[in-house]
Amino acid sequence: MSGAKSVNQQRLWQRHADMARLGGTPKGGVNRQALSAEDAAARNQLAGWARARGFGIFTDPIGNLFVRREGTDKAALPVVSGSHMDSQPTGGRFDGMYGVLAAFEALEALEDAGVKTRRPVMAVAWTNEEGSRFQPGAMGSAVFAGTYKLDDMLAQKDWKGVVLKDALAETLKAAPAPVQRALGFPLDSYVEAHIEQGPRLENERKTIGVVTAIQGSRRYIVTIDGEEAHAGTTPRAARKDAYAAATRLAAAMYEATTDEGDTLRFTIGRVEVSPGSPNTVPGKVVFTIDMRHPRNEVLEAHEAKLKAIVAAKAAPCPAAIERVTNVAPTDFDPKVIGLVRSAAQALGLSSMDMPSGAGHDAMHIARLCPAGMIFVPCERGISHNEIENATPEDLAAGAQVLVEVLEALANR
Amino acid sequence: MSGAKSVNQQRLWQRHADMARLGGTPKGGVNRQALSAEDAAARNQLAGWARARGFGIFTDPIGNLFVRREGTDKAALPVVSGSHMDSQPTGGRFDGMYGVLAAFEALEALEDAGVKTRRPVMAVAWTNEEGSRFQPGAMGSAVFAGTYKLDDMLAQKDWKGVVLKDALAETLKAAPAPVQRALGFPLDSYVEAHIEQGPRLENERKTIGVVTAIQGSRRYIVTIDGEEAHAGTTPRAARKDAYAAATRLAAAMYEATTDEGDTLRFTIGRVEVSPGSPNTVPGKVVFTIDMRHPRNEVLEAHEAKLKAIVAAKAAPCPAAIERVTNVAPTDFDPKVIGLVRSAAQALGLSSMDMPSGAGHDAMHIARLCPAGMIFVPCERGISHNEIENATPEDLAAGAQVLVEVLEALANR
Repeated sequence: MSGAKSVNQQRLWQRHADMARLGGTPKGGVNRQALSAEDAAARNQLAGWARARGFGIFTDPIGNLFVRREGTDKAALPVVSGSHMDSQPTGGRFDGMYGVLAAFEALEALEDAGVKTRRPVMAVAWTNEEGSRFQPGAMGSAVFAGTYKLDDMLAQKDWKGVVLKDALAETLKAAPAPVQRALGFPLDSYVEAHIEQGPRLENERKTIGVVTAIQGSRRYIVTIDGEEAHAGTTPRAARKDAYAAATRLAAAMYEATTDEGDTLRFTIGRVEVSPGSPNTVPGKVVFTIDMRHPRNEVLEAHEAKLKAIVAAKAAPCPAAIERVTNVAPTDFDPKVIGLVRSAAQALGLSSMDMPSGAGHDAMHIARLCPAGMIFVPCERGISHNEIENATPEDLAAGAQVLVEVLEALANR
Repeated sequence: MSGAKSVNQQRLWQRHADMARLGGTPKGGVNRQALSAEDAAARNQLAGWARARGFGIFTDPIGNLFVRREGTDKAALPVVSGSHMDSQPTGGRFDGMYGVLAAFEALEALEDAGVKTRRPVMAVAWTNEEGSRFQPGAMGSAVFAGTYKLDDMLAQKDWKGVVLKDALAETLKAAPAPVQRALGFPLDSYVEAHIEQGPRLENERKTIGVVTAIQGSRRYIVTIDGEEAHAGTTPRAARKDAYAAATRLAAAMYEATTDEGDTLRFTIGRVEVSPGSPNTVPGKVVFTIDMRHPRNEVLEAHEAKLKAIVAAKAAPCPAAIERVTNVAPTDFDPKVIGLVRSAAQALGLSSMDMPSGAGHDAMHIARLCPAGMIFVPCERGISHNEIENATPEDLAAGAQVLVEVLEALANR
């Protein structure tokens, strides 16, 4: 347990404060969207800390940033830990960033304790996990895992029409990393630390969430075509009001996605109403749907309901629903789950098994190697919000568990 | 009837085509919002035509642009006709512009026919009738009539934060008019020609609408505060979803504003959902309501319903509804109404009496002097739309009626 004891709570907390300045907002959150100038600044910050400790750094063709601490066996596959540094437009300081900084803290703690591991241990910051600027999210890990094609992703555009390839080139120019490696090199195993982003750990007064699975998620775009008309003269019977139709669809969808256990997640997050003039009947509405559940068949059944609603309720406006992402539920590796559970126990930390409500990069990497996750509590479960918060103690506790698990994996 | 016979259908149609190029859109409409570069171009175009005919031009402190043809009695008050040249963001070629060009055609027809009138006759282009960039609409005529204060309007901002005073100064710099007159100088009478922007004339196969009144209109802004949260982790019971609340309000409002005769107009035209990320529960929604009816007490009763819905249905989100404009119904002057009716009859044109569903600058000028309006049909009643259309014959017929009425008013 020598590595875990060297976790430095104050250093880890300070690193979060340093990163929170990059894209920091007046309300105390961050706006550090993928491949922005703020993202580049965070990459430079991490690379600077890595260089100061003598760790190796490199990137890959989708811009994932790796920090490597060598093991004793040069031929051994690496044990990897990390998450992402990009944020929502009005995001918090801990979502993603904690997983990167906990992994980096693990490397430093091993270094401080003089622990030698057989396998190399790496920290990684995956590109564009949030998917709020460039869709889809968890992009860097998905490209690394071969789930999405690199060329398709490089051609993606943000809401302003900027092509991802150009934004990536600009980011890597502003935050150069010396060695570029091929996508999807072999990994021994993967562990990701993250704030829970939900209220369960806090409600149950537990410090460590032993994450057993990630629920499946699907994203849709609904498009409704109406006819622009004068708000003062056009009788309702003569209108093709795209927003009135959108309201009927949304109301029916909220109702159809109510479930007894409150397990299904249904969110309309982005809504664009055109032309957006107060005295013109809307001619077009586009909105997004994010739907998640731990069981694929439940998602399938509710997708059918959404399609039926679009077909039945939009008249007289033509409407369409398109599924743009479909990520199946992920079950984590029993050995990694067991290591997380026993590390928490060995460190005297309270823990509970739980599925993840949010998607994470780990769901893609779990296709490549044994993988797992460690959750720590966040205040009131609030995330994707500038007031997102966590305690220095809980963050350090999660990092200690992480060091234990990484050491065990790297030496087994 | 010498003036009316000199109305030149081809010239009037060509002037519409010339103006439609200023801010013209690929779909054949116009985007010529108030105090934009396109608005300035339209002002220069009109002023150029006026100069070529030897008419006087001048502006006032809110940027209303007047064209004056002298009368024989230098001391007589002017008879005025016009409308506006600004458009919706995706507007048509005829809304407003027809009233300005018909008035200018009237001046030219009088000139071509060598008709002398006792009173001067003026064409006017009122500033910012649409209210889609700077709120409220019908601003230039309302300031002229003293209904809104000049200083309040100069301080208004568009959705991007541009101050109206600055936009006006830039417009008048780009489209200078030599003489500036004080606001609200005395008028003898006012007549405005306009496309109907509704389907009644076309359905009833009439060419001239004798406008008896304008329905009242009220505008509101509804603000709903939620709490941003992660779309994957936050159970519905723990959400304060501003868009779910907005959907409940909108659905209830659409239902509460359904009336048997389909006379009440209720429109949600602009909707802003923040932060607008597909996987974040919306933290804030702002939407506009435009509501109109010919009877004030009906508007009053429905306003009470809207307030009750906001109070009852937004929980757990705090929500507020604010009334931002309230324009009472307008009854036009019986003498002017009679002149329009008899001019149509004298010219052998079919006509019908009707109220106006849309607001127009005439509703403000009617406070200052006897006023009325002339409607001509537009295709399928469609307006505030790039496909808005009208026939050269109907436009010329309306201009002929206008010349008759202006001559009668100017010589009485």
